[in-house]
Amino acid sequence: MLVSGRRRLLTALLQAQKWPFQPSRDMRLVQFQAPHLVGPHLGLETGNGGGVINLNAFDPTLPKTMTQFLEQGEATLSVARRALAAQLPVLPRLEVTFLAPVTWPDKVVCVGMNYVDHCKEQNVPVPKEPIIFSKFASSIVGPYDEVVLPPQSQEVDWEVELAVVIGKKGKHIKATDAMAHVAGFTVAHDVSARDWLMRRNGKQWLLGKTFDTFCPLGPALVTKDSVADPHNLKICCRVNGQVVQSSNTNQMVFKTEDLIAWVSQFVTFYPGDVILTGTPPGVGVFRKPPVFLKKGDEVQCEIEELGVIINKVV
Amino acid sequence: MLVSGRRRLLTALLQAQKWPFQPSRDMRLVQFQAPHLVGPHLGLETGNGGGVINLNAFDPTLPKTMTQFLEQGEATLSVARRALAAQLPVLPRLEVTFLAPVTWPDKVVCVGMNYVDHCKEQNVPVPKEPIIFSKFASSIVGPYDEVVLPPQSQEVDWEVELAVVIGKKGKHIKATDAMAHVAGFTVAHDVSARDWLMRRNGKQWLLGKTFDTFCPLGPALVTKDSVADPHNLKICCRVNGQVVQSSNTNQMVFKTEDLIAWVSQFVTFYPGDVILTGTPPGVGVFRKPPVFLKKGDEVQCEIEELGVIINKVV
Repeated sequence: MLVSGRRRLLTALLQAQKWPFQPSRDMRLVQFQAPHLVGPHLGLETGNGGGVINLNAFDPTLPKTMTQFLEQGEATLSVARRALAAQLPVLPRLEVTFLAPVTWPDKVVCVGMNYVDHCKEQNVPVPKEPIIFSKFASSIVGPYDEVVLPPQSQEVDWEVELAVVIGKKGKHIKATDAMAHVAGFTVAHDVSARDWLMRRNGKQWLLGKTFDTFCPLGPALVTKDSVADPHNLKICCRVNGQVVQSSNTNQMVFKTEDLIAWVSQFVTFYPGDVILTGTPPGVGVFRKPPVFLKKGDEVQCEIEELGVIINKVV
Repeated sequence: MLVSGRRRLLTALLQAQKWPFQPSRDMRLVQFQAPHLVGPHLGLETGNGGGVINLNAFDPTLPKTMTQFLEQGEATLSVARRALAAQLPVLPRLEVTFLAPVTWPDKVVCVGMNYVDHCKEQNVPVPKEPIIFSKFASSIVGPYDEVVLPPQSQEVDWEVELAVVIGKKGKHIKATDAMAHVAGFTVAHDVSARDWLMRRNGKQWLLGKTFDTFCPLGPALVTKDSVADPHNLKICCRVNGQVVQSSNTNQMVFKTEDLIAWVSQFVTFYPGDVILTGTPPGVGVFRKPPVFLKKGDEVQCEIEELGVIINKVV
């Protein structure tokens, strides 16, 4: 087994050396594993859907987790920029396992009813203040991991969302300063158990939102300077290939800057904290009749410039 | 300054050597800092209100954070047991700064309306299922740290609570197995902004519960085998010396085992996770007229066998 594993690894490495370098000016940071590497590593996705450059091989002094990478700020980012500019070997996409680009953040902050068109679909007024709830970090899984339907819920629903990743600690951050605290953006699937949200747990949303595997993230943390305008991106969700949500982040009621300013009145943000900024219309529960996820479904959440995450429901 | 600091340290160390060893069969694990030590350390409080044994000095291979200590399970606990049995120098209490016994857990799980007498006070039925919400770990402060009144709330209230600390990873834990997943117990102050709980944020409780400094914990993680019966402990809160809450943990609707079994249907528990098990009656908001915390108040939360935490409101 081991010998065969090593042979496979060698083949993969040789292939990697030959793999054509796919140039991209975008910085798409990932956490990944590969058969020839021990434990999670930091990497660069070479363009949306491309292979992976091993950042830890480029500079062994770099940390191996995104949170630690972000904590070091400009120092580590400049290393990643040098890696991007160099001609480095690229691991073929099929040879690596993508993890969520951020794991074990202190906070997964979520925002309710934050798309104008999603409010219309529910026939509720657009909120005057952001409505904030949360998931536990233990619900985070990778961009291609399975979402496990829990036996406790019969009404598990999809929600594609733009996720903001914090890059710099801060409290009482002004909206005008907020972008300085953002590392970048990624795609989130805010999987939601409607029965638990609407009728159980005293209507506190936490439990219905935080089942294990209910927060797929990825594939990459696309740094803010690599995104033309985070508030003008097509956002879409497909279930078994059929488009169920299709909108634009320009429909967000409270934009990234407003959300950071609002939440940082209450709490200190730390590098790696994630904000799920709400979902557009088209969720299953408001369909007539309602539709929920079932075993075997495949959900694709896609955001322009950021990428697509694909999660099978099991 | 440095020389004087070193002299003070030497004096403190000499005093520590002379400090009478206070024997205690209880294992009271703490995280602490001291002027002569770099960064947080793990220690043993020598009895309720006693000095501190530096566990990292006793065995330099021990981790320096409680979460890592708990992750190693029986291996590290047996080292702590040996330290408890040995005649070790004790740092005088006044020479150390007590941190929360657990910092940066993945989860701070909170339980609403979990005391029979607290439900009566609100004139609400005793819940048939636990009502679960959460705080962010960033709200945790030490047992003698200040609670900062945020300008966003005019109705900040006290809530003394028994906190359970998880020692072993688990999912779908049966109530009969739950105690095997508990490391021990500590005292928590679930500081609560009533205006935000009752009238703001779409009635989602998170924001009103998770302001920075709204989760004092400590002074020690008292291991489960050191507590005679966690569900028969006097629990009390005093504001400026006046008793405002006084009950017994035997009034809890859902006990530790039930809560772990319930929540682990949804999420995987990890070592260091904290469960705040709800508060007894006597909170400020249900007084006539309501009473809230103001700058300069001193809140003491005390639980029999576990200890007392004292937090000044600023």
